[in-house]
Amino acid sequence: MPALPPSVHPAWLPPEALRAIGSRRVLVRGDGLLVETVAAEAQRACARFGGTTTHLSTHLAATGDDGDAPEADLVLTLVPQCEQLGDEGFALARTSGNVTTVEAGTPAGLLYGFFHVVRLGEAAFADDLPSDSVQRPTLSRRMADHWDNVDVEPTMGQVERGYSGGSIFWEAGRLREDLSRVAAYARLLAACGINAVSINNVNVHRTEAHLLTDRLGDVENLADLFRPYGIRVHLSVNFASPIVLGDLSTADPLEPAVRAWWAETTAAVYARIPDFGGYVVKADSEGQPGPFGYGRTHAEGANALADALAPFGGVVHWRAFVYNHRQDWRDRSTDRARAAHDHFAPLDGTFRDNAILQVKYGPIDFQTREPISPVIAAMPATRLAVELQATQEYTGHQKHVCYLAPMWSEVLAFGPWGEGGGTVADVARGTRRDAENDGGGLVVVSNVGDDRFWTGHPLAQANLYAFGRLAWDPTSSPEAILDEWIGLTFPTGGDGNGENDGGELAQARHLRETLHAMMDESWRTYEKYTAPLGVGFMVRPGHHYGPDVDGYEYTPWGTYHFADRDGIGVDRTSATGTGYAAQYPKPWSEIYESVEQCPDELLLFFHHVPYTHTLHSGKSVVQHIYDTHFEGAELARGIREQWLSVAELSIVPEDLRDRVAERLDEQVRCAEEWRDQINTYFYRKSGIPDALGRTIY
Amino acid sequence: MPALPPSVHPAWLPPEALRAIGSRRVLVRGDGLLVETVAAEAQRACARFGGTTTHLSTHLAATGDDGDAPEADLVLTLVPQCEQLGDEGFALARTSGNVTTVEAGTPAGLLYGFFHVVRLGEAAFADDLPSDSVQRPTLSRRMADHWDNVDVEPTMGQVERGYSGGSIFWEAGRLREDLSRVAAYARLLAACGINAVSINNVNVHRTEAHLLTDRLGDVENLADLFRPYGIRVHLSVNFASPIVLGDLSTADPLEPAVRAWWAETTAAVYARIPDFGGYVVKADSEGQPGPFGYGRTHAEGANALADALAPFGGVVHWRAFVYNHRQDWRDRSTDRARAAHDHFAPLDGTFRDNAILQVKYGPIDFQTREPISPVIAAMPATRLAVELQATQEYTGHQKHVCYLAPMWSEVLAFGPWGEGGGTVADVARGTRRDAENDGGGLVVVSNVGDDRFWTGHPLAQANLYAFGRLAWDPTSSPEAILDEWIGLTFPTGGDGNGENDGGELAQARHLRETLHAMMDESWRTYEKYTAPLGVGFMVRPGHHYGPDVDGYEYTPWGTYHFADRDGIGVDRTSATGTGYAAQYPKPWSEIYESVEQCPDELLLFFHHVPYTHTLHSGKSVVQHIYDTHFEGAELARGIREQWLSVAELSIVPEDLRDRVAERLDEQVRCAEEWRDQINTYFYRKSGIPDALGRTIY
Repeated sequence: MPALPPSVHPAWLPPEALRAIGSRRVLVRGDGLLVETVAAEAQRACARFGGTTTHLSTHLAATGDDGDAPEADLVLTLVPQCEQLGDEGFALARTSGNVTTVEAGTPAGLLYGFFHVVRLGEAAFADDLPSDSVQRPTLSRRMADHWDNVDVEPTMGQVERGYSGGSIFWEAGRLREDLSRVAAYARLLAACGINAVSINNVNVHRTEAHLLTDRLGDVENLADLFRPYGIRVHLSVNFASPIVLGDLSTADPLEPAVRAWWAETTAAVYARIPDFGGYVVKADSEGQPGPFGYGRTHAEGANALADALAPFGGVVHWRAFVYNHRQDWRDRSTDRARAAHDHFAPLDGTFRDNAILQVKYGPIDFQTREPISPVIAAMPATRLAVELQATQEYTGHQKHVCYLAPMWSEVLAFGPWGEGGGTVADVARGTRRDAENDGGGLVVVSNVGDDRFWTGHPLAQANLYAFGRLAWDPTSSPEAILDEWIGLTFPTGGDGNGENDGGELAQARHLRETLHAMMDESWRTYEKYTAPLGVGFMVRPGHHYGPDVDGYEYTPWGTYHFADRDGIGVDRTSATGTGYAAQYPKPWSEIYESVEQCPDELLLFFHHVPYTHTLHSGKSVVQHIYDTHFEGAELARGIREQWLSVAELSIVPEDLRDRVAERLDEQVRCAEEWRDQINTYFYRKSGIPDALGRTIY
Repeated sequence: MPALPPSVHPAWLPPEALRAIGSRRVLVRGDGLLVETVAAEAQRACARFGGTTTHLSTHLAATGDDGDAPEADLVLTLVPQCEQLGDEGFALARTSGNVTTVEAGTPAGLLYGFFHVVRLGEAAFADDLPSDSVQRPTLSRRMADHWDNVDVEPTMGQVERGYSGGSIFWEAGRLREDLSRVAAYARLLAACGINAVSINNVNVHRTEAHLLTDRLGDVENLADLFRPYGIRVHLSVNFASPIVLGDLSTADPLEPAVRAWWAETTAAVYARIPDFGGYVVKADSEGQPGPFGYGRTHAEGANALADALAPFGGVVHWRAFVYNHRQDWRDRSTDRARAAHDHFAPLDGTFRDNAILQVKYGPIDFQTREPISPVIAAMPATRLAVELQATQEYTGHQKHVCYLAPMWSEVLAFGPWGEGGGTVADVARGTRRDAENDGGGLVVVSNVGDDRFWTGHPLAQANLYAFGRLAWDPTSSPEAILDEWIGLTFPTGGDGNGENDGGELAQARHLRETLHAMMDESWRTYEKYTAPLGVGFMVRPGHHYGPDVDGYEYTPWGTYHFADRDGIGVDRTSATGTGYAAQYPKPWSEIYESVEQCPDELLLFFHHVPYTHTLHSGKSVVQHIYDTHFEGAELARGIREQWLSVAELSIVPEDLRDRVAERLDEQVRCAEEWRDQINTYFYRKSGIPDALGRTIY
């Protein structure tokens, strides 16, 4: 693997994170590309920290003829036919002879076991390590989608909704010559458990469409870099490819010539990339072509591509983000929130087995607070993937600290059928389909770019890391994941026992506490100073940063709050509103329908209420708005203060310290702007003064 | 002159507009580049329409030795030392021998006389032509500023606030190879009386800065094309040029090295372009560098450049558009409207004679309705130019019909000192400075681009034409100017007596009436359906097209309306507001200060009033808003209907018909959007229903 330029931050894999392994005797047993990756990782760590690595082939191991294998502190062994560990699982144990062992039935399992030891660090070699711990991923599909364009778009930049510079894949219309960051990225993804990546924007523009055919070599080059880390490459394709790239005059998915074109084209892809993952398609959405243009259903559209991929084991990720973006704001009967359910729920059971319907977690578009999409509960006979967004489109553009794992954790644990009926994570796992772990899994829109810290805001790295870990185990606690991320990203010197480390262990404790204080509640803090009570979308049009209460109110995008001098909110009840609440199964259809039962944080998503309406909290809506906004901006100041207390620690690199500090200044400024604009807007409209007499303009 | 591509609309100089001249015997007498232009114009017309042209030199004419001059129907004679006609005037007469004569003391005067005959057409050869009519321009400086960039800006496009395609000068970072449109443009400008042009955006980006030095050849090439039509070329320059282009570390206007740099650089310009007009500077404005950076006044800044230009007869146009664009919306004491007066009025008398302070007509920024800028009345010892905007930044992006001459006419006739105290036009003329016609004149931001109709909306051509004619004579009636434009742009065949023209004369009458009905009141119609009562700036941020009532309300741009549930408007009185009203001399300071006396159309610019406040019209503010918005949208529909009634006439080219029809559809759509958004906004906020019960959302 080529070395990463020293100017690039190593994220959660700094060399020191591998010190515990690298300072020991390591034995790797087994064959295969990913086993070689494990051996190379160990070898590199040992070269740095004084340990040794030996790699023996499976053949020798299998015959038991490794009596002369060297003594080791860590033994990683590929055990073929070990079905209980599955495709990606591993078992970690500590022998009575003080050897830590990792066993896996597949090379991928061994790689994940290796990174598990990295995460554990010295603890992996402690005597209190549980004697036999088996880990298997809950979800088998754990994917990062890139919204990278090959060309730079004049208004959106190169990465659509990218807040971390340009693409790590593409530069000036071509594949980058120096792909060392891609290799490093693959390693980072594997270390948090991601096993699939889509390398281009779901809005497939003309240049990018050609990746499927005449620029397939670029995809092949990238796949070669991801493969050693167990990551399959996917491609976003244009539904109209048969027209755009082929000589056809139609992209009708039922037209034999179209199907033949997809079959041939797909075969050509697999001829060069045998482990190609499949396609990602945004169709009939925000201007992209799709099956509606030919009077076909989305199942017919998705199945055409699925059939082309099936012979090769590929899948199509078909996005459910379909709605009318030319809506008339005057028409209150149309409800964007309903759209995906209206379009897709009737199609349940008509999708191919290798077609995955990719559903955003909420019905609108990655707002800070949305209810769970009702589509997730509505299609038991369809493989569903749940899409999350690490890139902070609506959560502060990686200028604000906003640790998203708590939100995602809530999403994954949500029970669409009430208690005991299974969770969103279960749907992503596919357990409700009577098939073991064949769900569509989890997908995240990536937040990385060619920024030296990968994610603009260094602390935003934690979001990508947390996504991988939650996809591996959706029941993980966000705090524990953050703990892991902190430990890896800010390693201490010394051997971890607090001696000879120049006080770094004490520093690390302080840093850990401080980062938890800054990040654990940061999503809820962001929610406090932005759009209130689930109403969403009070952002500046276009870029979606900073407040603009009416910014989308009179637009065709279907994102309204209907605030007038008396009240605010969208009536989505069945009784008097758009009927969206009825798209849920019980108990949620009844809970959301009821203004009394609806949770406060989603009240304005489901109900239009007077400003004087009393919340469960006992506060009026307008006082809640004032209070949360004053509090949220104050909390943002607090986050900045907290950082000042750790910024001088020697384990915090100076450039990272400065970058975070600079972003925190902007967060404080912007949070106060949100506070004042939202409060002023509602004060001017309602005329109701703040009960505490604080300054509103 | 190279031929214009046939795909380009000839605007107000179609070949047929020169039929009356071209079908006669024309004699041109005199020497000089512009006399040759006259002769060439006549020659070309005669070649087409069967007439003859003879060109005799002044020498022969002066010696009286032209006894053998051919008999002629039109004689254009340069009469040197004819001071009564001034630099650009001419005398038109009809001899007893039925010869139409044009005499001028300068070649430029002869050219304007020639185009005057073009405008008159057959009427120039009628016996009822007044026997001796002298015309001299009221304003000697009549300038068009281009906001064209050499490079295409990623967000603004090539022409900043350009709604007519790319630049006619620049393409892909270079001067266009085919400059035939520039030559045609020069001819169009001369035909309406414009005699100066600035060829690049006042926001001088890096590439464009180099036009002053290493890319001066481009400027020279353009000057060569404008010169035959009596138009001097100006250049927008970056105040920081000594740093950007020179090797200096400062642009301090009092620093000798800086002054020397400007002197040398300017001498180099004049060495190649002896009739170069001078510089245009936007300094300390919206991010451009300026003298404030060095603790210098704007007079010191302007004078540094003026001193460099003075030896060569050049001028600097120094823009007064200086304000704080990083304002805090919470701070109601800062008032953008005050800024230019605050900055510049104290500097009166300190500017060089060849420094012209260029003042936008209103204190904000080319809104549909603003009061006259108080700077215009405040600097009697300074040469002022008044800046108008033909490009429809805030008046419908050349998608809406908005004939601006009525607004400009109101501006020019406005008396800042009340009745009998002189007008804005007088200030532009300089008559209040005890010097004859040395005012800064009028400047227009051009609305042309490489669009085939020049201006996107074909009817927007009339704005550029009208600007030239109003600059020539500010007392011209907008209706009469429109009449001229219609006659030139839609000429009839035949000889104008209604015979042998295939009914074209009848068509022309109908077209003329219809265009008057569509255009005469179109500015007031636009005002009706957009921001009410002078409050301004309820436009979509960034591009400024379409409604967004709160779009700028919480931004740093200083453009607020302060609408709350009770009322709206900006208190700019001295008694309780920002004190802006006191920047005017009497009587306006008193009239604007008084909520009773303030004209309705500016009420919300000067006062914050309840929605129930009764206007002079007898209506409440909110009912006025409803009524004007319903009426304005209805009028827009009417304009579209009117066009349908003439669109099939044979004298209306098919492509022009279609372009106008397409734009009218958009105007109707957009006007209804304005109507509904504005009405809904104020209904939601005020809770006051429409007295007529019309639909508000």
